[in-house]
Amino acid sequence: MTHAQRGLVPAALQRLDKAEIIRSRERIAELAHTTPVMTCQTFDREIGAELFFKCENFQRTGSFKLRGAANAVFSLTHEEGAKGVATFSSGNHGAAIALAARARGIRAFVVMPERATPVKRAAIEGYGATVIDCPGGPPEHERELARVIEKTGVIYIHPFNDARVIAGQATAAFELIHEVPNLDVLITPVGGGGLLSGTALAAAIFAPRIKIFAAEPDGANDAYRSLKAGKLIPVGNATTVADGLRTSLGSLTFPVIRRHVHKIICVSDTEILDAMRRIWERMKIVVEPSAAAALAALLKKSAVFAGKRVGVILSGGNVDLNLSGYGAPDPA
Amino acid sequence: MTHAQRGLVPAALQRLDKAEIIRSRERIAELAHTTPVMTCQTFDREIGAELFFKCENFQRTGSFKLRGAANAVFSLTHEEGAKGVATFSSGNHGAAIALAARARGIRAFVVMPERATPVKRAAIEGYGATVIDCPGGPPEHERELARVIEKTGVIYIHPFNDARVIAGQATAAFELIHEVPNLDVLITPVGGGGLLSGTALAAAIFAPRIKIFAAEPDGANDAYRSLKAGKLIPVGNATTVADGLRTSLGSLTFPVIRRHVHKIICVSDTEILDAMRRIWERMKIVVEPSAAAALAALLKKSAVFAGKRVGVILSGGNVDLNLSGYGAPDPA
Repeated sequence: MTHAQRGLVPAALQRLDKAEIIRSRERIAELAHTTPVMTCQTFDREIGAELFFKCENFQRTGSFKLRGAANAVFSLTHEEGAKGVATFSSGNHGAAIALAARARGIRAFVVMPERATPVKRAAIEGYGATVIDCPGGPPEHERELARVIEKTGVIYIHPFNDARVIAGQATAAFELIHEVPNLDVLITPVGGGGLLSGTALAAAIFAPRIKIFAAEPDGANDAYRSLKAGKLIPVGNATTVADGLRTSLGSLTFPVIRRHVHKIICVSDTEILDAMRRIWERMKIVVEPSAAAALAALLKKSAVFAGKRVGVILSGGNVDLNLSGYGAPDPA
Repeated sequence: MTHAQRGLVPAALQRLDKAEIIRSRERIAELAHTTPVMTCQTFDREIGAELFFKCENFQRTGSFKLRGAANAVFSLTHEEGAKGVATFSSGNHGAAIALAARARGIRAFVVMPERATPVKRAAIEGYGATVIDCPGGPPEHERELARVIEKTGVIYIHPFNDARVIAGQATAAFELIHEVPNLDVLITPVGGGGLLSGTALAAAIFAPRIKIFAAEPDGANDAYRSLKAGKLIPVGNATTVADGLRTSLGSLTFPVIRRHVHKIICVSDTEILDAMRRIWERMKIVVEPSAAAALAALLKKSAVFAGKRVGVILSGGNVDLNLSGYGAPDPA
C-alpha cells in the first residue's frame, strides 16, 4: 500500500511519494546545501538521549525555507517561470524565494509587512527581488498580494500550503534519515506546518518507525489545539518571540500533521530563549528562536525522549543581533 | 638546513621540529577535535580573497587553548603527572588545563582573577579543577600561583611561554595547511603569542611560502610595537574587549614572531565587535571578540589580501551572552 493509498491525504499531496521527494532533492541540489549534522554531549547527557541536530541555520539564506522555495520555483514550467513569482513573507520565505528566483533568472516580488526588520528587507533586496512594503494586518497584506499578482501576472508561491514547498521541506528530513541510521524520533518546530508536514511525510515514506514530534510556542499554539479538537483552529493574535512560528496551519499541512504527528509539545517564550542561549553557548552556533523551540521541548519533556535517538531540525539562524552588552568598560 | 639550524630560535624551541609537531598532534588526538574548515561567500566577495576559516570555536572547551594544554599535560612524565598541574588563567587556558588534567586523571589548580566571569569559573570547576580566586593585579596573581606551586608541588603550565604549549597550538595550522592546499596567507589573533608562534612555526616547517599575519587590538598592541622596536615592549594597561588578547608576548614567543611573522595589523574594538557581529550573522557561528579580530584585520586591509588564499584561525567561541534584546513585546 502506498502512502497516497492510505487515504486522508489532500488531493494536492497525493503525488508526494518516494520518487517525488528524491526528485525534489535532485531539483534543489544546485542551490541548496546538504547541511551538516551536529551533536552535543552536554545536551545528550542532560536529556539522556542521543541528539542529532540537522543544521538548517547553515542553509543558504539562513533557513530551511530555501528548500521549499527552490523546489517550487524550479518546478515551474518554462511558461510559468517566464511570468515570475510573488509571495508574502516577513523574512525567511521571502529571502528563499528571492534567491531561488535569481538562480532561475526570473523576477520575484515579495510583499512584506511594514514591521519587517531592515536586515531582512535588505537580504531580500540583496537577492534582487522587488520588495513591496505593506502596512496593516493580514487582510491588507492579502489584498496587496492579490493586487500585485493581478497586475503583474506572476505565479504565487505560498510559504507552506503548497505541495511543491512541502516536498522541498521534506528533503531536510530525507537527508537526516539517510545520514543518521536508526532514529527513533524526529522533532521540528511548527508554525504553518510546511517543515513539519514535509518531515512527517519523509519519515512515513523512508523510515516509518520514526515517531514525529513538534514544538510550538504557547502564544501561537494553533497546531496543538487543532490536533486536540480534530479540526483547524487558527490562532487569532499570535504572541511569541519565535517570529517564524506565528502562522497557523493550512488546509494541506493540517491533515498530514493530524495523520502522522505523534505529539505537539508547547513551550513558553522563556523556555525558547533559554534553549536558544544554551545552543549558542554550548554548540557555538547561531540559531533563531523558532529553531530553539525544538530543543526547548526536548528539555521540558526529557523523560519522553530518554534512551532515544532523536533527530532535531534546527530550522534557521536569522536573528537581529543585539550586542549592546559588549564593549562595556573593563571593571578591572 | 633544519628550522632549528637557522638560528635566532630560543633553546627551548629547538626541538620543535616537523617530527615534534606531528607527535604533538598524535598526542592530543584522543582529546582534541580536528575542527572543521568553513567558507563564506559574502566575506570572500567583500575582501576579494578566498578565506578558509579554521573553526577552533568548535574545539573542546570552546577554544584552541585545549591543543596546547593537552600537549603539555600529556607530555609530562609519569612522575610529573602524579604531582598534578597548575596555571593562572581568566578563562580559556584554565578550562583547557582542567579538561586535559581530567583526561589524564591528575589534579589541576587554576588561579583566577576575582573579576573572572562566573560562567568561566563554573566551566573550569565543571571539569574538576580546583579554582583559587585571587584578588588584585598581576603581582598578586603571581605570588598566589607561586604559593600554590610551593605548597602542592604541582607542575606549572604557562599559558603560552612554554614549548609544549606552542607545539600544541601549532597543530591547528598543521591541520589547516593539510586540509586546504596552496594557502598564500595565514592570519591569527595575537595576545601572548602562543597561537601565532605555533602557527608561524607550522607554516615555516610544512609550507614555508605562506606569509604569516596577525591581528592585534589597538588597546593591547605590544606585539606591533615590539616588532617595530626590535625588542619586547610589554603593554602596561591593556584595554580591549578582546579578553583573550590582553596579554603581552613572552620570551619564547617574541623571537619566533619576530623571525616568521610578516605583519601585525592593529584593529579597534569597534572593528572587532563589528567583525564579530558579522561572523555571527553571516556564518551563523558564535566566535569571541579575540577570534573576530582576525576578520577585522582582513576587512580593514582588504587590498593586501586581494586574490589570495587566506587561512583564518577563529581562535574561540566563549562569550557571555547578553540576550536582553530578545523577548521584547512585538510591536505589531
